[in-house]
Amino acid sequence: MRTLSGTKAISADLSKIVGSVNVEVRPAALVPYRTDATFGFAGLPTAVVRPGSAQEVSRILAWANQRSIPVVPRGAGSSLAAGAVPVQGGIVLALTRMNRILSIDPVDLIAVVEPGVTTQALAAAVREHGLHYPPDPGSKRVSTLGGNVATNAGGLHGLKYGNTGGYVLGLQAVLADGQIIRAGGRLLKDVAGYDLVHLLTGSEGTLAVLTELTLALRPAPAASGTGLAYFPDLESASKAVGGVIAAGILPATLEFLDARCIRAVEAHARLGLDTAAGALLLFGDDGSPDEVARTLRTMAGLMPDHGATSVQVATAAAESEALLAARRCALPALARSGGATILEDVGVPRSRLPDLVHRINTIAEAHEVTIATFGHAGDGNTHPTGCFDPADLAGRERVDAAFAEVFQAAIDLGGTITGEHGVGAAKLPYLSAQLGAAQTALQARIKKTFDPAGILNPGKVTR
Amino acid sequence: MRTLSGTKAISADLSKIVGSVNVEVRPAALVPYRTDATFGFAGLPTAVVRPGSAQEVSRILAWANQRSIPVVPRGAGSSLAAGAVPVQGGIVLALTRMNRILSIDPVDLIAVVEPGVTTQALAAAVREHGLHYPPDPGSKRVSTLGGNVATNAGGLHGLKYGNTGGYVLGLQAVLADGQIIRAGGRLLKDVAGYDLVHLLTGSEGTLAVLTELTLALRPAPAASGTGLAYFPDLESASKAVGGVIAAGILPATLEFLDARCIRAVEAHARLGLDTAAGALLLFGDDGSPDEVARTLRTMAGLMPDHGATSVQVATAAAESEALLAARRCALPALARSGGATILEDVGVPRSRLPDLVHRINTIAEAHEVTIATFGHAGDGNTHPTGCFDPADLAGRERVDAAFAEVFQAAIDLGGTITGEHGVGAAKLPYLSAQLGAAQTALQARIKKTFDPAGILNPGKVTR
Repeated sequence: MRTLSGTKAISADLSKIVGSVNVEVRPAALVPYRTDATFGFAGLPTAVVRPGSAQEVSRILAWANQRSIPVVPRGAGSSLAAGAVPVQGGIVLALTRMNRILSIDPVDLIAVVEPGVTTQALAAAVREHGLHYPPDPGSKRVSTLGGNVATNAGGLHGLKYGNTGGYVLGLQAVLADGQIIRAGGRLLKDVAGYDLVHLLTGSEGTLAVLTELTLALRPAPAASGTGLAYFPDLESASKAVGGVIAAGILPATLEFLDARCIRAVEAHARLGLDTAAGALLLFGDDGSPDEVARTLRTMAGLMPDHGATSVQVATAAAESEALLAARRCALPALARSGGATILEDVGVPRSRLPDLVHRINTIAEAHEVTIATFGHAGDGNTHPTGCFDPADLAGRERVDAAFAEVFQAAIDLGGTITGEHGVGAAKLPYLSAQLGAAQTALQARIKKTFDPAGILNPGKVTR
Repeated sequence: MRTLSGTKAISADLSKIVGSVNVEVRPAALVPYRTDATFGFAGLPTAVVRPGSAQEVSRILAWANQRSIPVVPRGAGSSLAAGAVPVQGGIVLALTRMNRILSIDPVDLIAVVEPGVTTQALAAAVREHGLHYPPDPGSKRVSTLGGNVATNAGGLHGLKYGNTGGYVLGLQAVLADGQIIRAGGRLLKDVAGYDLVHLLTGSEGTLAVLTELTLALRPAPAASGTGLAYFPDLESASKAVGGVIAAGILPATLEFLDARCIRAVEAHARLGLDTAAGALLLFGDDGSPDEVARTLRTMAGLMPDHGATSVQVATAAAESEALLAARRCALPALARSGGATILEDVGVPRSRLPDLVHRINTIAEAHEVTIATFGHAGDGNTHPTGCFDPADLAGRERVDAAFAEVFQAAIDLGGTITGEHGVGAAKLPYLSAQLGAAQTALQARIKKTFDPAGILNPGKVTR
C-alpha cells in the first residue's frame, strides 16, 4: 500500500463514500476477513468496506485505483482456493449488503440479482414461481451468487445442467478505475462485441467487480429421484458411468465416493453404508415423473452389468435426500475424521477418472499421506481431500508435495488443476504448467489491460 | 499494406509456407473472396492462402504480423455481417482445407475437429455414433465449424440447447504473432485462468485464428415432432410462446413468421399455407417418443387458448420436415420475391417480441420500405429482412435508414443489434450505441492486447 497515509485517513475517505457504519478498521473486527475457507492462507486487510450500490463500488475503486491500494472483493468467504484472502493486504470489499433479488420474470425466465444474494436464497425464491436455478455448488447455503459467478462455480448437476457460467446472461461490473459497464442482458442470443460476460465470469474479482447479475432460469422439473449403487472398485463404477451415457442419458446426478470416503461418511453420519464396498455411485435425474421413473429404471438396470454388487432407488423426496446425504456430508465427514483437510479440485475427461484416482492413490501412498476422493463422476471433476494433523508440519508438507504431483497427474491426463473452485492464491503456483508459457503471458496481458495498477484482488489467477 | 513489396514477393513468401498450389494471386481467382453472403460489402485481397495445419497458420501470421499485412480468416464465406470480407485488403486465410474430423468420443461425448469441417458434416458423422451436435445455424449445409465458433452462431434450437458457444469446450488458436495456444479441453468443468475459450468464441477472427475445436456432444434424441399454428397477429402468437414456457416446457423449436413472410413463402414454395393468417408459429420438441408426444400434445392444446385459429401436429419425420420447410425457406422465398435482400439479426427479451415487430413495421412504413420478419420466437432473436430493387439506389438508402432505426429500437427494448450473425463490418457503426463508451473503449483495448499490429480481420467488431 504504497501511498497509505494511515488507517485513519483510509477510514475517513471510505466513510465519506459508504458511511462510517459500513467501514471497519478495528483489528478484532478484521479477523474474519483475514481468511476464507481455505486451510493455510491468511492476509491482513487494512479495512473492510461494505458498499450498498454500484455507484459506491465505483467511488471506492476510483479512490483505491488512484492510490494503488489493493481491493479484495468478498461474498461469503467460502472460497476453497484462497480467492477471498487479502494476501497483499489492502481493503476487503464485502458485497454482502448488496443482497437484493431485483426481479424474477417467469416469461423471460430471468432473475436479476445483486451479487450478495446467496445461491440458496435465489433457488428458494424462484421455486415459488415454479422455476429452477440449476447451479448447485456444495456451498450453496452460504455462498453468494457474486462469488459463484466470479469463480464460475460448478456443483452436483454439471453434466445435465452445466455450470454457473451457462446461466449468466448479463452483468453490470465496475472496472478498476471506477467506470461502470453493462455486458450482455436479458437475451439468450447476443453476439455484439467480445464476450465480456464470460470473460468476467470466472475471473475471480481480478478484472472487475460484479455489481448486478442477470441469470437464466428454467421451468422447475416436476419430479426427481436418486439411486445408489456399490461397486467393488472405482474402475467398475466409472464403466457404469460410461454405460449410462451409452444408454442415451445425461442424468442430473452422477456422483462417486471412494472406499475411504464411504468409511469416513459412515463413521460420521451412520447412514448404514456398506463400508466394505470399493466405490459408491449416486445417480439421479429430474423431469416429468414418467421420465424420471424411466431413466432411474434404466440406470439401476445397467449398474449390475458393470459389476454393481447392490443397487437402491428412491423416488420419494425424503428417501432420495437420504441417499444424497452420503455425498453431501463427504467433506464434513472427512473434516471430522481427524485434524485438518485440504480439499482439492482436479478434473479429467470423464473416461480418465479411474486413471486419475489410481494416480492419486499411488501418489498418496508414496508420500505416506491420507487422501480420500469423491466428486462428480459425470463430469470428471474430483475432490481429492488430504486429511492431516495440522500440528504436524512435516505431515502438512507431505500433503502439499503429494498434491503438487496430483496436479501434474491431472494435467498429464488432459485435465485441469481446478474444475470449479478457481485458481485463487492457492493454485497460482501450478497454473502455468497447465496453460503453457504463451497463454500464461497472454492472461497476464489481459489482467494488465483491465487493471493497469494491479489493485483488483492481486496475487490471484495471474501474476 | 504498408510494407507491401509487390504481389509476386507475397506469393513467393506464402508459397514457401504452404506450397504454391495453395496460394492464389490471380485477379480472377480472387473474385469469390472479395465478398461473403452480405449484400453491399466487397474488398480486394492481394492473395488467398490455404494452410493445411496450425503450424502453417502460425508461420503465415508471424510473416504477416512482421509486415503489418491484414489477414482475414474465412470458412465458407456465409457471413451475413460482412465478417469475411477483406475490407482493408490483405490476404484471405481460407481454412477450408483444414477439414478433418479428428476424433469422436462416445464416452467423453466429445468431437475434435479442424475449423474447416462443415456443421452438417459433423452432425452427420456424430449421428452414426448415436450422438447429437445440437447447434443448427440456418447455413449449416455450407457453414464451417470454425466460422460457427468465430461468430458464436445460433440457430433454430437455441431455447432448448443454447448456441454454439455452449458446445465449445476447448480450442487451439494461433495468436497474431504466430504463437500457438490451447485453451480449455475435453472437460465440462475447467476454471483454470481467464475463460479464453469464450473470449475467442464470437471474436470473429479479430483476436486469434482458430485451428482446432473440441466440441461437446449429446446423446441423440430418439424422436422428434413439429406442430404449426396460425394466429390472427404476432401478439397472440407471442403470448402463446409465454404459455408454452408457463407450462414448464423449453421446446427444441419455437419459430415464427409474420404475415409478409407467410405470403412470400407460399408464393415461392406452394406449401398450402394460410396466407390470410397474421402470424405462423412452429413448435417442436425432441426426446423420448413419450416425452415428444406429451410436449407436442400440451403445446398444441394451449395454442387455441391464446387465439390460434388452426393447429396441426406431425410426429412422422417427413410430415415434420414438411412443416419446418415453411421456416427453412423463409429467406430464399424473400430473396426471390423480388430484387435483393438484407437479412438483419436483432434480438430482444422474449416478452418484448411483439413490441419489436410492431416497431419494425412502423419504421418500415415510415421509410416506405418492405421489411418481412421471421425468426426465433423462443429466444427473441428475429430476422427482419429488407427486400428492395438493387438498382434503386434511393430505395436501398431508405432500407439502410430504416434498419438504423430498427437497431436503435432493439437497443431501446433491452435487446441487441446482433443475436447470432456477428458484428462484422456491417454492424460496426451501430455497436457503440449498444455497448456504451466505456465498454467500447475496453473492447478496443482487448483487441490491442491480442493484436497490437491490427492485422487480424481489421475493420470488424472493433475499431
